Amino acid sequence: MAFKLLPSTDKAALARLMRSWSADVVALGNGRPVPGDTAPELASANVALTTTVGFGPRVFELAGNKPAGLDDLPVMRHDRLRDEWSGGDLLILVGADDELSVVHAVRRFVADAKPFAVPVWRQTGFWNSTGPDGKPVTGRNLFGQVDGTGNPAVGTPEFDATVWAADGSTTVVVRRIKLNLDTWDELTRSEQERAVGRKLSTGAPLTGTAEHDELNLAARDADGRPAIAANAHARLSHHSENDGRRIFRKGLNYVHDTGTNRESGLIFLSYQADIAGQFLPLLARLDAADALNEWTTTIGSAVFAIPPGFHPTGWIGEKLLG
Amino acid sequence: MAFKLLPSTDKAALARLMRSWSADVVALGNGRPVPGDTAPELASANVALTTTVGFGPRVFELAGNKPAGLDDLPVMRHDRLRDEWSGGDLLILVGADDELSVVHAVRRFVADAKPFAVPVWRQTGFWNSTGPDGKPVTGRNLFGQVDGTGNPAVGTPEFDATVWAADGSTTVVVRRIKLNLDTWDELTRSEQERAVGRKLSTGAPLTGTAEHDELNLAARDADGRPAIAANAHARLSHHSENDGRRIFRKGLNYVHDTGTNRESGLIFLSYQADIAGQFLPLLARLDAADALNEWTTTIGSAVFAIPPGFHPTGWIGEKLLG
Repeated sequence: MAFKLLPSTDKAALARLMRSWSADVVALGNGRPVPGDTAPELASANVALTTTVGFGPRVFELAGNKPAGLDDLPVMRHDRLRDEWSGGDLLILVGADDELSVVHAVRRFVADAKPFAVPVWRQTGFWNSTGPDGKPVTGRNLFGQVDGTGNPAVGTPEFDATVWAADGSTTVVVRRIKLNLDTWDELTRSEQERAVGRKLSTGAPLTGTAEHDELNLAARDADGRPAIAANAHARLSHHSENDGRRIFRKGLNYVHDTGTNRESGLIFLSYQADIAGQFLPLLARLDAADALNEWTTTIGSAVFAIPPGFHPTGWIGEKLLG
Repeated sequence: MAFKLLPSTDKAALARLMRSWSADVVALGNGRPVPGDTAPELASANVALTTTVGFGPRVFELAGNKPAGLDDLPVMRHDRLRDEWSGGDLLILVGADDELSVVHAVRRFVADAKPFAVPVWRQTGFWNSTGPDGKPVTGRNLFGQVDGTGNPAVGTPEFDATVWAADGSTTVVVRRIKLNLDTWDELTRSEQERAVGRKLSTGAPLTGTAEHDELNLAARDADGRPAIAANAHARLSHHSENDGRRIFRKGLNYVHDTGTNRESGLIFLSYQADIAGQFLPLLARLDAADALNEWTTTIGSAVFAIPPGFHPTGWIGEKLLG
């Protein structure tokens, strides 16, 4: 959920809200109700609830110290952005194994924000990262693709270099991407695989056999054409084709329906140290040439800085707002 | 999801669709893709996927043998029904432990229905019926109430008498009930408990201590007033106050958002042998007097007959359409 700051909310007021939200983050993460909770029984233990708070560009107009590159993204040629899914001054990103717990937590953040900020959008998504045998898997989007294989692995030097700025902060881009399942379903499986450059069965590159095999971007097929096409998503987004630029991406599937108007897609979250330096060139490249553009339309876009984690005696954004 | 039959769909065509859906129900319930599945990897085992198919009143205009009482409900005084959540000729109700599996299954039913019927609404909800210790619980709605305690227990003679018609069929009413959480949250806990007649902590009646204690509708409080108020939901909906009429109800929480227009509520499913004989009198009574009406508004309504289960060699609705 994203919020817009009320005109009366200055730096000191925002600091008060962050103190209050910090206590909420801790209580809800431990399955405890928050002070003044109107539905305390909906706080559940053992649901792995986590909350991430982000600051939109406007927060740094109040507080100064804007991170380099934290600006609303320029509109891409394929974008069809709607106000109702775009922008925002504050982000709360709540995940859990139980949707009721998420909805309860969001309601508490909204209630505590009331004197300071009002909701502008809420996006609800789901992701299954557990296989039928109970083991972790990368997970699949609504196109049926294994989605996220190219990420740097959490805890590796590549991950740290991709995600963390020098001060321990990061940034997140939230893009709401509508998927045209009807026209996608008209393709053959090999057409679908060619658009991505990976196999639907395992997520392996078309040049490999296992999900995490490296792409062989030089390989040619029997007809002498590139085995991974020039406009394949996996090629265009690969760091070796982007001067080493990487992001850490996390998708959430969504469905959104109003009567006969059915919509499905991906809430795409990209984490990186520097949006302008890492994400934006990649986005521009994909917008210009990605084969997948034919079946995808971005309808929402927002950017946020995520301050470093806080200590038990501290609060979210303490360094910026304290 | 509900569908509207195309004008060209006659009884024989509907029978063809039911044969096709029957095979889908079996395959998807076993975690297998269906014939022609465009995203076969999204069929997952071990997610407890079940599908129920229902027939709206229009199906019986084609097929005859309309069950007594299967008519669109009259509009209640508190109803604010919207076309986008109401009516329908066919229902598929898909449940699973994993939302991606549900979305995949629904997409297959839609694809196979294409020559015969088009979607008119899709409603997505969630319910947590497992406690933090892993044991089954009744579950809670977004008001924080334990919701469903008054149901006849599955497998008892009361359940069978409530739900099953003589031929093994049943009916379901689908009501989309918007909850006004903002004004509900302004009440004190004791005001909230008085409106329902049950405790928020455990779901026990205000006259008892455990969730499944019987209501004592004759009890008075210290001031001589009924301990469970005259307009309390638990009193007005109790079978002893309704000439023994019962239903089996199942709620699903929902959230639905478009930009700043946030909506939350309950997708209320009521199962009974006879809608006109069991559900309707109860609904009319609650519409006239239920204290909860102040914080609830029904915005969608639909009714369906659910034919008896089918054998491995048979298909859904075989008796009606065969």
